[in-house]
Amino acid sequence: MSAIAETFLNEKAKVDKQVIQPFPKSKKIYVQGSRQDIRVPMREIECADSQTSQGNEKNSAITVYDTSGAYSDPAVNIDIQAGLPLVRAAWIAERNDTEQLAGPSSTFGQTRLQDSELASLRFKHIHRPRRAKAGANVSQMHYARRGIITPEMEYIAIRENLRLQEYTDPQLLKRHAGMNFGSVLPDRMTAEFVRAEVACGRAIIPANINHQEIEPMIIGRNFLVKINANIGNSAVTSSIEEEVEKMTWAIRWGADTVMDLSTGKHIHETREWIIRNAPVPIGTVPIYQALEKVDGKAEELSWEIYRDTLIEQAEQGVDYFTIHAGVRLAYIPLTAQRLTGIVSRGGAIMAKWCLTHHRESFLYTHFEDICELMQAYDVSFSLGDGLRPGCLADANDEAQFAELKTLGELTKIAWQHDVQVIIEGPGHVPMHMIKENMDKELQECSEAPFYTLGPLVTDIAPGYDHITSAIGAAMIGWYGTAMLCYVTPKEHLGLPNKDDVKEGIITYKIAAHAADLAKGHPAAQLRDNALSKARFEFRWEDQFNLGLDPDRAHEFHDETLPKDAHKTAHFCSMCGPNFCSMKITQDVRDYAAAKGIEDLNDALTKGMEEKATEFKKMGGEIYKQA
Amino acid sequence: MSAIAETFLNEKAKVDKQVIQPFPKSKKIYVQGSRQDIRVPMREIECADSQTSQGNEKNSAITVYDTSGAYSDPAVNIDIQAGLPLVRAAWIAERNDTEQLAGPSSTFGQTRLQDSELASLRFKHIHRPRRAKAGANVSQMHYARRGIITPEMEYIAIRENLRLQEYTDPQLLKRHAGMNFGSVLPDRMTAEFVRAEVACGRAIIPANINHQEIEPMIIGRNFLVKINANIGNSAVTSSIEEEVEKMTWAIRWGADTVMDLSTGKHIHETREWIIRNAPVPIGTVPIYQALEKVDGKAEELSWEIYRDTLIEQAEQGVDYFTIHAGVRLAYIPLTAQRLTGIVSRGGAIMAKWCLTHHRESFLYTHFEDICELMQAYDVSFSLGDGLRPGCLADANDEAQFAELKTLGELTKIAWQHDVQVIIEGPGHVPMHMIKENMDKELQECSEAPFYTLGPLVTDIAPGYDHITSAIGAAMIGWYGTAMLCYVTPKEHLGLPNKDDVKEGIITYKIAAHAADLAKGHPAAQLRDNALSKARFEFRWEDQFNLGLDPDRAHEFHDETLPKDAHKTAHFCSMCGPNFCSMKITQDVRDYAAAKGIEDLNDALTKGMEEKATEFKKMGGEIYKQA
Repeated sequence: MSAIAETFLNEKAKVDKQVIQPFPKSKKIYVQGSRQDIRVPMREIECADSQTSQGNEKNSAITVYDTSGAYSDPAVNIDIQAGLPLVRAAWIAERNDTEQLAGPSSTFGQTRLQDSELASLRFKHIHRPRRAKAGANVSQMHYARRGIITPEMEYIAIRENLRLQEYTDPQLLKRHAGMNFGSVLPDRMTAEFVRAEVACGRAIIPANINHQEIEPMIIGRNFLVKINANIGNSAVTSSIEEEVEKMTWAIRWGADTVMDLSTGKHIHETREWIIRNAPVPIGTVPIYQALEKVDGKAEELSWEIYRDTLIEQAEQGVDYFTIHAGVRLAYIPLTAQRLTGIVSRGGAIMAKWCLTHHRESFLYTHFEDICELMQAYDVSFSLGDGLRPGCLADANDEAQFAELKTLGELTKIAWQHDVQVIIEGPGHVPMHMIKENMDKELQECSEAPFYTLGPLVTDIAPGYDHITSAIGAAMIGWYGTAMLCYVTPKEHLGLPNKDDVKEGIITYKIAAHAADLAKGHPAAQLRDNALSKARFEFRWEDQFNLGLDPDRAHEFHDETLPKDAHKTAHFCSMCGPNFCSMKITQDVRDYAAAKGIEDLNDALTKGMEEKATEFKKMGGEIYKQA
Repeated sequence: MSAIAETFLNEKAKVDKQVIQPFPKSKKIYVQGSRQDIRVPMREIECADSQTSQGNEKNSAITVYDTSGAYSDPAVNIDIQAGLPLVRAAWIAERNDTEQLAGPSSTFGQTRLQDSELASLRFKHIHRPRRAKAGANVSQMHYARRGIITPEMEYIAIRENLRLQEYTDPQLLKRHAGMNFGSVLPDRMTAEFVRAEVACGRAIIPANINHQEIEPMIIGRNFLVKINANIGNSAVTSSIEEEVEKMTWAIRWGADTVMDLSTGKHIHETREWIIRNAPVPIGTVPIYQALEKVDGKAEELSWEIYRDTLIEQAEQGVDYFTIHAGVRLAYIPLTAQRLTGIVSRGGAIMAKWCLTHHRESFLYTHFEDICELMQAYDVSFSLGDGLRPGCLADANDEAQFAELKTLGELTKIAWQHDVQVIIEGPGHVPMHMIKENMDKELQECSEAPFYTLGPLVTDIAPGYDHITSAIGAAMIGWYGTAMLCYVTPKEHLGLPNKDDVKEGIITYKIAAHAADLAKGHPAAQLRDNALSKARFEFRWEDQFNLGLDPDRAHEFHDETLPKDAHKTAHFCSMCGPNFCSMKITQDVRDYAAAKGIEDLNDALTKGMEEKATEFKKMGGEIYKQA
């Protein structure tokens, strides 16, 4: 099979214009923390006035969580050749527990750096990597457990807070109080709360000391539900340029983290470009690259090759590693009678290795060595579910749950090293079997954050698996999953292009937000309410702008009502100009207002009396009341 | 506002070629019942052989429920000028309880028929309407309650059965046995079961005696979850031709019923074309047309105008009417403080009428008159939720639940007349508040089937409300909703075009099927399993063909792997040719097979032993086992 020729970034590389376009009526704002260099970005959406019979009424601007980084700030000059500014540089330096190395300490990293043929592909401003000083542990969990509130934690507290204090609606807070959050949700996030959640392992801050460009974020079920977008070229298709563009595109629409799952020829170089331009944490599955190093022959993998890969990637700045250490030899035959066996690529690689050597995998036997390596860079574990079900028929089976139990045991070991952990989850699960996954995960893994792929609630809709999986994702998010791994319409069929990435992300923003609402996050409904009010008042532009995708909303509206006049018209295209239910409701309200509160109360009382007598006089008699 | 010029079907009207295209590798089959003219259509999807190391293995064809009518049967010559064949003609005639009228008995129907200016728009082969003989009740519920199994009921039993007996997998049946169906699910549908469910009101068969073209179907929570697609032109946009095309397009992709919500100039003529060409039940909201008759002035509506509209539409063959009889005067002020007031168009119309006249609505005061009319044609009630919430903030409020209680009371009255009833539900509801809707509906409305619009679980995604609502729809379907009203991507923004209709339908097929799976329908998972097996075995074409949208799956696959060779290649585009997890799983299976069952059992036992000791030796010690 001839590989499609790759094209590269190098000299010509420019940022995609679509990526730096500001959102309509949106302003990038920064909320400053206790020190000058804690500047937390948010997006503020301006709303028009309401036109009422009493004149115009102001509507507050709505502040939304913003993952798009400097790209959406017109004041920042974006240069992807140079990479993003180093938000965390001073914080890390001040801690004085790391040292800068002379160069990469992995063999592979050194080789690539010295390979002159790669010069044209190489990111120009590679930083010399940092590593913890001998004996030091530089993980956010380590600091948290020693009672230290890092700048990262304060940043996150402000970020999650969403300027909640400005909007707090006592009605809403009361309504949502005490819902099913895992612990008591503070009415305002504090840095101390962030610290406490990280210390006990219920949340993680993925933040490699070599990824100083990130705007810190948190993954935990007492915070906003996050989403991850996967990108990555394969041997068959796509280029470095496309992957960097996909990353910036993904964060524009709301990806909280991005996983680079590249399997092509220039994984190392692609990753450098992505990390240097990524304001969000980057995850990888190191076994994919390790496999490339042994020409795809799983049985030739070794601890030494894998270890070198971990160091190589940790020194580039990868924030979390998916590691399938729970695929134990004894569990593999449990999959033999499955309808679709092992569908996790990492799981299948390790299964093949284990069977060939008839030994436990080196991921399992060297788990503590891995922990020691992770703590030196603050890379977080994403413990992979190598035995996740690949179809409904295999959901919640013995293989899956045996592995989950092992992941729980490994979590405890990682925590002994103060290394942060999230747990990966399925996959393909029918709705009635989803909750069992969440409950078991919390129990077996001591409440470490769950990070699930969907799950897809049916297997019959290839081409629409962003939707089949969003149903499961919203539900499991409600039940307690902290981060949802997106699925694009191309799932099972091919690699996603830019449109697919956007479609997948918006779909998952919906699932995550629906989960925030159902969990009772006090601030989540503010945006829904603002949009609903705009809709009710025919403030069309506000309705578009407050939505997840203003461009599409605008475009869809204009398709049916192409005339400019209609865009602000006080009717919608569904009912036409003669009649509109929203208009009539305003009449009802005016009527209620005109008749006065007394009359309204009369009517209410009458209604309640009728309810109270339970309409005992059934049948024809009820008409006599009319 | 100038209305856009309408174009019409008349002489040139042709069936859309896309609509009569057979599905790939699919065959239209008919299962015959106890009499010659009970021929139940199904679609059989042929699958290729599995290639195993032991040679080829056959895969059974998969039979799926088919809503597409004669359009997908190449043996039938489709002529939309003539309308569809009358499937039910003999059944209705044989019952000998109806009479054929000389012509329409509604004033409006007579006027339209005599208007020569409408000749060019008029369907050519209008049937003279039938009506129950004086004193007769021709509803399916009436027959059911007298112990009569109608041909419609037998037809449905075969249709719901999906040739289950051929596929029954004892494993699957056992796994799903006794899940949360409302009553015991028979392992094979029987006509008697259908009759019993209709008799007690837990299911309805929407089947107007003047819609003899329909292929009978059932709506009830002990049957497959159904979906409805709304079509309809408005004063501003779209034509008769487009609406008929949308209907045939909608049933191709799986709409079980279609609601014609037209509000344009030629509602009467459009409806005739739609019904004569529709093999699925057609629903309407008669108050929409009544409103047109009084030039959009809600306060000028009267019982007489409304009654004439009901007769007009019943004699054309509308199978169910949405009637907002639960909007009582006392409930209207309950909506005044809502964020989005009354968003149901029918609800708003009735509210305006009630407030203007300060009286209970004529829908409520004349409810028994309406029942008498419905029973003469077997039109089913779809009791409208005129006070449904229009945003999350208004979900599950006093107004909504007060109306629901009244709908329950009206249900009992309708049942006194043996008139069939379904109950409409919301709307906009966050996930954690969905179940309360279902539970209350079952309780207040004596288990009459629930028919919900979504619900949308967030308000922040205009342009994606098919997805926000599919999440809620899947969940409420699982909880017991019998029919889901689709939402298209254009919801809140404009009228759906053909692509939107398809997108909405596929999305809702996903929600309905996910609900069937979660409810434990014994046959539902057969299709998922067949597709998953095809996916695992790289039978790409089978994977496409077994899916809800073979065209899109095929297209998406080919986008990334344009070469023909790849279409049957034993790897997928995600991982490239060098490595594939599915391939490795086959190795695992071969390994297990080669090592023999004894070795497998050894491995299993070892795994279980380790599980049994609960890995008590934690930490470093576990590595010693490796």
